[in-house]
Amino acid sequence: MDRMSNDPSSRKPRSPDGDRLDKLCIDTIRTLSMDAVQKANSGHPGTPMAMAPVVYTLVQHALRYDPADPEWPNRDRFVLSVGHASMLLYSALHLMGVAGIGPDGTALGSAAVTLDDIKHFRQMGSKCPGHPEYRLTAGVETTTGPLGQGCGNSVGMAMASRWLATRFNRPDFPLFDHTVYTLCGDGDMMEGVASEAASLAGHLKLSNLCWIYDSNRISIEGGTDLAFTEDVAARFRAYGWTVMDVADANDTVALLDALDRVGRSGAPTLIVVHSHIGFGAPNKQDTAAAHGEPLGADEIRLAKKSYGWPEDAQFLVPDGVYQHFADGVGRRGRALREDWSALLERYAKAHPDLAAELQRTLKREPPPGWDADLPDFPADAKGLATRDSSGKVLNAIAARYPELIGGSADLAPSTKTRLTFQGAGDLGPHEPGGRNLHFGVREHAMGAVVNGLALSHLRAYGSGFLIFSDYMKPSLRLSALMELPAIWIFTHDSIGVGEDGPTHQPIEQLAGLRSIPGLTVLRPADAQEVVAAWRVIIGLKHDPACLVLTRQAVPTLDRSRYAPAAGLARGAYVLADPPDGRTPEVILVGTGSEVSLCVGAYETLTQDGIPARVVSMPSWELFERQDEDYRESVLPPAVTARVSVEQGSVIGWDRYVGMTGAKIGMHTFGSSAPLKDLLTQFGFTQDAVVAAAREQITASKKRRG
Amino acid sequence: MDRMSNDPSSRKPRSPDGDRLDKLCIDTIRTLSMDAVQKANSGHPGTPMAMAPVVYTLVQHALRYDPADPEWPNRDRFVLSVGHASMLLYSALHLMGVAGIGPDGTALGSAAVTLDDIKHFRQMGSKCPGHPEYRLTAGVETTTGPLGQGCGNSVGMAMASRWLATRFNRPDFPLFDHTVYTLCGDGDMMEGVASEAASLAGHLKLSNLCWIYDSNRISIEGGTDLAFTEDVAARFRAYGWTVMDVADANDTVALLDALDRVGRSGAPTLIVVHSHIGFGAPNKQDTAAAHGEPLGADEIRLAKKSYGWPEDAQFLVPDGVYQHFADGVGRRGRALREDWSALLERYAKAHPDLAAELQRTLKREPPPGWDADLPDFPADAKGLATRDSSGKVLNAIAARYPELIGGSADLAPSTKTRLTFQGAGDLGPHEPGGRNLHFGVREHAMGAVVNGLALSHLRAYGSGFLIFSDYMKPSLRLSALMELPAIWIFTHDSIGVGEDGPTHQPIEQLAGLRSIPGLTVLRPADAQEVVAAWRVIIGLKHDPACLVLTRQAVPTLDRSRYAPAAGLARGAYVLADPPDGRTPEVILVGTGSEVSLCVGAYETLTQDGIPARVVSMPSWELFERQDEDYRESVLPPAVTARVSVEQGSVIGWDRYVGMTGAKIGMHTFGSSAPLKDLLTQFGFTQDAVVAAAREQITASKKRRG
Repeated sequence: MDRMSNDPSSRKPRSPDGDRLDKLCIDTIRTLSMDAVQKANSGHPGTPMAMAPVVYTLVQHALRYDPADPEWPNRDRFVLSVGHASMLLYSALHLMGVAGIGPDGTALGSAAVTLDDIKHFRQMGSKCPGHPEYRLTAGVETTTGPLGQGCGNSVGMAMASRWLATRFNRPDFPLFDHTVYTLCGDGDMMEGVASEAASLAGHLKLSNLCWIYDSNRISIEGGTDLAFTEDVAARFRAYGWTVMDVADANDTVALLDALDRVGRSGAPTLIVVHSHIGFGAPNKQDTAAAHGEPLGADEIRLAKKSYGWPEDAQFLVPDGVYQHFADGVGRRGRALREDWSALLERYAKAHPDLAAELQRTLKREPPPGWDADLPDFPADAKGLATRDSSGKVLNAIAARYPELIGGSADLAPSTKTRLTFQGAGDLGPHEPGGRNLHFGVREHAMGAVVNGLALSHLRAYGSGFLIFSDYMKPSLRLSALMELPAIWIFTHDSIGVGEDGPTHQPIEQLAGLRSIPGLTVLRPADAQEVVAAWRVIIGLKHDPACLVLTRQAVPTLDRSRYAPAAGLARGAYVLADPPDGRTPEVILVGTGSEVSLCVGAYETLTQDGIPARVVSMPSWELFERQDEDYRESVLPPAVTARVSVEQGSVIGWDRYVGMTGAKIGMHTFGSSAPLKDLLTQFGFTQDAVVAAAREQITASKKRRG
Repeated sequence: MDRMSNDPSSRKPRSPDGDRLDKLCIDTIRTLSMDAVQKANSGHPGTPMAMAPVVYTLVQHALRYDPADPEWPNRDRFVLSVGHASMLLYSALHLMGVAGIGPDGTALGSAAVTLDDIKHFRQMGSKCPGHPEYRLTAGVETTTGPLGQGCGNSVGMAMASRWLATRFNRPDFPLFDHTVYTLCGDGDMMEGVASEAASLAGHLKLSNLCWIYDSNRISIEGGTDLAFTEDVAARFRAYGWTVMDVADANDTVALLDALDRVGRSGAPTLIVVHSHIGFGAPNKQDTAAAHGEPLGADEIRLAKKSYGWPEDAQFLVPDGVYQHFADGVGRRGRALREDWSALLERYAKAHPDLAAELQRTLKREPPPGWDADLPDFPADAKGLATRDSSGKVLNAIAARYPELIGGSADLAPSTKTRLTFQGAGDLGPHEPGGRNLHFGVREHAMGAVVNGLALSHLRAYGSGFLIFSDYMKPSLRLSALMELPAIWIFTHDSIGVGEDGPTHQPIEQLAGLRSIPGLTVLRPADAQEVVAAWRVIIGLKHDPACLVLTRQAVPTLDRSRYAPAAGLARGAYVLADPPDGRTPEVILVGTGSEVSLCVGAYETLTQDGIPARVVSMPSWELFERQDEDYRESVLPPAVTARVSVEQGSVIGWDRYVGMTGAKIGMHTFGSSAPLKDLLTQFGFTQDAVVAAAREQITASKKRRG
């Protein structure tokens, strides 16, 4: 990983004119940031003013990055974990001339960030929103703002770099060797998710990872010594990182020397950079006031004066600045990328299959025939847990889908997510191409790392117990906000957990997950719906999915008697109707393990001559995407006698059963006992469903008069 | 904190018979645990077998604890953060003869844990559920199981010990000086919440805190070296902790020596205990198989044999074991507690006011007159942000409510939760009695620490942006499960956040919080509802509350024109009805900042001659607790034309507006822009509400035919 010293073009020019231009570029980043925040009357000027030399030096003299092709697969990544300092990134993207890319990955022929975007920082429609947003602005490697997440993402990206290298590099074809740089702040250092991710990165000896920690001793409530006096460097050494120190953020030579040594030790690197928040603002430097609000016109003038900048100029990019970036990162990056493209061309001839696989991977497309070995699950009254059927399906898919990788937060034997086929391997410090990831008991880092893997176009999954989705909620949300096809597998999805009791029995988690915009939640009813759910998931390119699975066995339904499981793709479907063709008088709607309970109740009602319908509703989100005709065909408005059955909070079920419907669900926390006792205790019995159905029919008849 | 060496009665007896009895007690804990797990056919035997000597030594020879009074306020706390090893705790509680206490704190006159409870481990109704549950079983200091939480709780408990000492101790009256011991495992060490809490504890120099880390090198997926190879001891030293090492969990002398030194350095202590999971089970020791499943009858016999135990005996408590506990922890604890009670009697004479305050604090009762200075907020069209009015109310209450303490995860200036009155102070290493807590950017630790404070009968609050409630969700849930009156204050509660954009704009958080059983969520509409909300919150003894507040100003409604804000206490109330006494044709339901929008629409509709009602619905939970008559008086079933307006996910609103109602809410993530632009973009305008109301009336007339 000693690339810069082998690459003279990346060395910092030491000429006086070069130094002058360096300073000019740095101050341009500073002043653009100050002006943008001031014009928006909102934002965070202090960190851009402090860290402009660092970002400039990194980008201009170290980053292997072609502004003309911000999607170049082997580019070095720069992650701005301090997302509130977004103007740092926007300024850099603008000055580098990063090209615009549409959400579908095609070049737009325009700049990713124009000066006009910067002038409209934080305004509707600008490419410069308050915090950087992936897919909105080319060059933004990940959406940041919620602290610690960018750190976690960067660990995933560094893992992906090595994974891709292991998969695709061949002798004389070093296609992947990129490094991931992350700018972090005190907040990142305090967040548990970053601690977890750092521990994992140290374990994995990710020498291609470098976190630059902006230590400015200032937090929102005051000095960091109000709450944060640990020895960060010693902590990272304990994680197995190499730690370097740059005493002054303005010392670009020292920083470049540190960057030069990144990776040499075979460990991830933390560079602690001591800085002055709001650098140059005479009255606000080193105060919390410089953090999150505009400096004010007067202070800006004074700061500009201190930089030797024209005090009245706004959004000024002095002559020579664009060109200096073009001569630095631009020229170096283009050469690197062109070399790489040529390498890839030769690779395509030498290794055509791998080259095709790479192209497919980059397009986020599953391999043809990925579903050739999907297991069949015949009807079986005893059945199996959906975590078990999912484990079989996952293995059948993954054996044909090389970049489908993932793991669990130390629960793989329980979540059944282990890939057991020949050669799947365990990803570790000495096996960077393994398919089974071991996150340790670090759910939150798992979430952020899986996002980082997905950002690198790997098809990644993370798994755990549904209750512990709570531990990683911020990352789940970001997978949805970023429109990443991350796969979240959550098992032990109800009081079906049994003896482990209320601390482990999810109640509100389904409702919470369903409320996240853009997240597709799937709770299949049996093994066949599991297969159908995986078909949906594999087809997703820009949506994360949550697969919610049982611990306990559920019957595999006889699909010759009930409707095919393919109906899952529409979110809800009629599983059974009155055998005599009558109009149903009541609709029983269930999800997951409760569908078989509904089916049992349906059989009883049918025997009793009561026409009933069973709807399996594995995914609210998919159902809501159907047209009204379909939705009304499944849940006809005329049939108001309805019962929902789900072992979770009933919040939201009124949408499908109406204010008059019966909702059999959880209204309290669960309890520690064998499942059969819990089912009685909490009313999940066939008798209870039948009784509710009968009451519903009586009430609806009464309503009709 | 050098108490044990000053207290000869706490020293370990070194007589041969004492050693024999020690071993007998330790093996009793082991075998009870094995037998209980085996009988339940579910549970975790390995850690109890390994850590029995540690728990025994701690309890018998160090813990200042009177089994006859498990609520003694100055007892040392023992937190089992490894909640899955619950049989360790149940065995100890049983053998110590801890007295039963009802949920209201009164003695039951029975044992907290009987041998019969242990025989019914993990069965319905047993005091021995799968994971320890606070308030279900006396002697359980906190509900654990979700890893890392007990660690965080224990930091709060240690802070509380010092806070209480500062508040109540007087010369010659050392009422509070207890120590908090926590048993942690590898999982705790990996969880970010524990890392955050440890960093905070080191900062605060909590020398009355001791974590005992069971290092057994085994995780569920295999050896911990699969994912966890950091130097834990070095990491804790970096946090400012004192670290000690016990090479063998069976070396009770070494452990006792380590316990003897707890606190001497003026820092929190980590004792790393190296152990063998499943100790004594010849085929399962040191394997993941010993972690989470019964050993099996054969292996149990072999393990018992290795202990020199009767192989066929089950649930055996040999002669002398109960007596030995009674002679150790029992005798020592009783003496300590009796001394303390005598001290308290003298204290009551010397400091009657403080003694009364202490009794009140222990009963979780607010001081009389707590509401004497509540501010009045006159009608004001411009109004103020509810975070601002809440900040004023909080200060007015806290100035009269000494044990109301709290803070923010580095956002106090934004959440307006800082206590600014004379003497409020900042809690820090040298000011343990401060009222303002600085959690740093550690939301999750804040959640767990606030729970720990609440467990110690302080009335604690934590605050942050609503979006970051996600970071602490597991702790929020536990506050509800434990029925703790924790106060959670979340501001910046909608797209009202504005320019910070979608990463900071909550969408699904309200729905998620409302789904947690037992959590009361309050989203007041204006300053007067804020006052009413605080009245509700202060009245809660066994329910956590979430107060959800705006960043932006909202009008203070003219309550001479609209109904009084006291209606908040019923969850929802009629704010305005048609002025001419007509029956409303449409109901507009809003919460928080959207209530004034509904009021504006109501005024327009009224001007247009359309009879409308506005319902302010600050709390679904409080509304659901009202009787049906009240609920129907607010939302009459006959009026089906309904519009809900809330800047959040619409999930759940069907319950109040019906399947045919209009739900104006968020269906996507938000966007970065000034608020006024966002309101137009996402349809939160008076025109949109009026239009929806008109459509609803038309549709409902059509339905009626």
